[in-house]
Amino acid sequence: YDRMDGVGSHEVVIETPVHGMLLEDMPVSDVADIFRTFMLRVNEIKKDPCIKYVMIFKNFGRNAGASLAHPHSQIIAMPMAPIRVVQEIDGARDYREEHGDCVFCDIVRQEAQDGRRVVGENDNFLAVTPYASRFSFETWILPKKHASHFENSDPAAVPDLAAIVKSTIGKLHVSMEDLSYNLIVHTMPVQDAPTDHYHWHIEIMPKLSLVAGFEWGTGFYINTVPPEAAAEMMNKGKKYKI
Amino acid sequence: YDRMDGVGSHEVVIETPVHGMLLEDMPVSDVADIFRTFMLRVNEIKKDPCIKYVMIFKNFGRNAGASLAHPHSQIIAMPMAPIRVVQEIDGARDYREEHGDCVFCDIVRQEAQDGRRVVGENDNFLAVTPYASRFSFETWILPKKHASHFENSDPAAVPDLAAIVKSTIGKLHVSMEDLSYNLIVHTMPVQDAPTDHYHWHIEIMPKLSLVAGFEWGTGFYINTVPPEAAAEMMNKGKKYKI
Repeated sequence: YDRMDGVGSHEVVIETPVHGMLLEDMPVSDVADIFRTFMLRVNEIKKDPCIKYVMIFKNFGRNAGASLAHPHSQIIAMPMAPIRVVQEIDGARDYREEHGDCVFCDIVRQEAQDGRRVVGENDNFLAVTPYASRFSFETWILPKKHASHFENSDPAAVPDLAAIVKSTIGKLHVSMEDLSYNLIVHTMPVQDAPTDHYHWHIEIMPKLSLVAGFEWGTGFYINTVPPEAAAEMMNKGKKYKI
Repeated sequence: YDRMDGVGSHEVVIETPVHGMLLEDMPVSDVADIFRTFMLRVNEIKKDPCIKYVMIFKNFGRNAGASLAHPHSQIIAMPMAPIRVVQEIDGARDYREEHGDCVFCDIVRQEAQDGRRVVGENDNFLAVTPYASRFSFETWILPKKHASHFENSDPAAVPDLAAIVKSTIGKLHVSMEDLSYNLIVHTMPVQDAPTDHYHWHIEIMPKLSLVAGFEWGTGFYINTVPPEAAAEMMNKGKKYKI
């Protein structure tokens, strides 16, 4: 066969020794250790100048493609910035040029003020079901203070990050039968300088239904739950009925 | 909630009255009737100038997101060309400008000559597991003669189309345990004039594994089965073992 060699690495982070433990049931300090591990590993991995991007993600549940039952997340280092990341950063740059501010800073400000899509908040982070969500119960966690690179986050803010991730996934678990989700850290390519137009954040995409032909063919997403309704159910601890 | 009105239509094509019938077990003439129905409906739907794109697809099996058990496919009409379609057409236009020919005509010519990825051929169509497939056992069916719009296909070629779709899905079913797939017709926006740079075709994406965090975050696809190996298994009637 024709093959192309690759460079990079793939690390699996074992989140706890307890096989059936859910992230939302772990102590905040243990969740904080997971995020500290991510930061530590990214800062180590990026010393290799061949590595341009480090993707941090967690697949939970069958519909989200999880292939291991033990609680874990993954770190994949790559020699290029992935196309989805480049598209997102380009979009944020365009927004900054047109509106003069970081799009994610604007989202934080507008969502905190509006309130209808807020599902969590503490001193350092805001959790929202984003406007025009692609997936039912899609939830983003954004640092309130502008920062482009996840791995350079203020260590003092990590407990707040752990607390909001734990509470958000806990709310998703209450509101959704048989929860499956992909959690993805969106951040700048590791060799790039800090920038004022891109803002790292976490996207949690519950997989209530499987992505099918329409989504594959179009790149459009059919979502039957408005984000305001998802936020209301999450905040009231109501179970969503399909 | 904030809402935006839409225009378009969604039609479900019931492929057969027999509840458990598989497409690959239907007579070729019945499969041809399905494709004739698609062409008939698209030609009717596109009389409305508001409709810019008509997406034809079939989801089969749980992993492919099928929500109905009875054999069916779907036709969704939209007031805009979807982003994935626009990106594919733009790519094909760039290729034509650079290389002077239609990229799909080149694929047909090169794959027929190479042979390692061919899984079906008749007078009017070629079926291949494309080079750099995103999914294990991904298979494309391409008309040999250049044509940009599916709905204007030569009616005389429809039996050949039905025969190659039937035999391709039959081969996939033999080679894959618990087959799930999305079948998508890729074609030009319906109001656009015929073009020499885009070439309609069918993409069949079996869902051996679920798309997970890495694919969502990057837009890159991990495929553990080279297309040449998939083609060999399909042509020899061998079952793939994960």
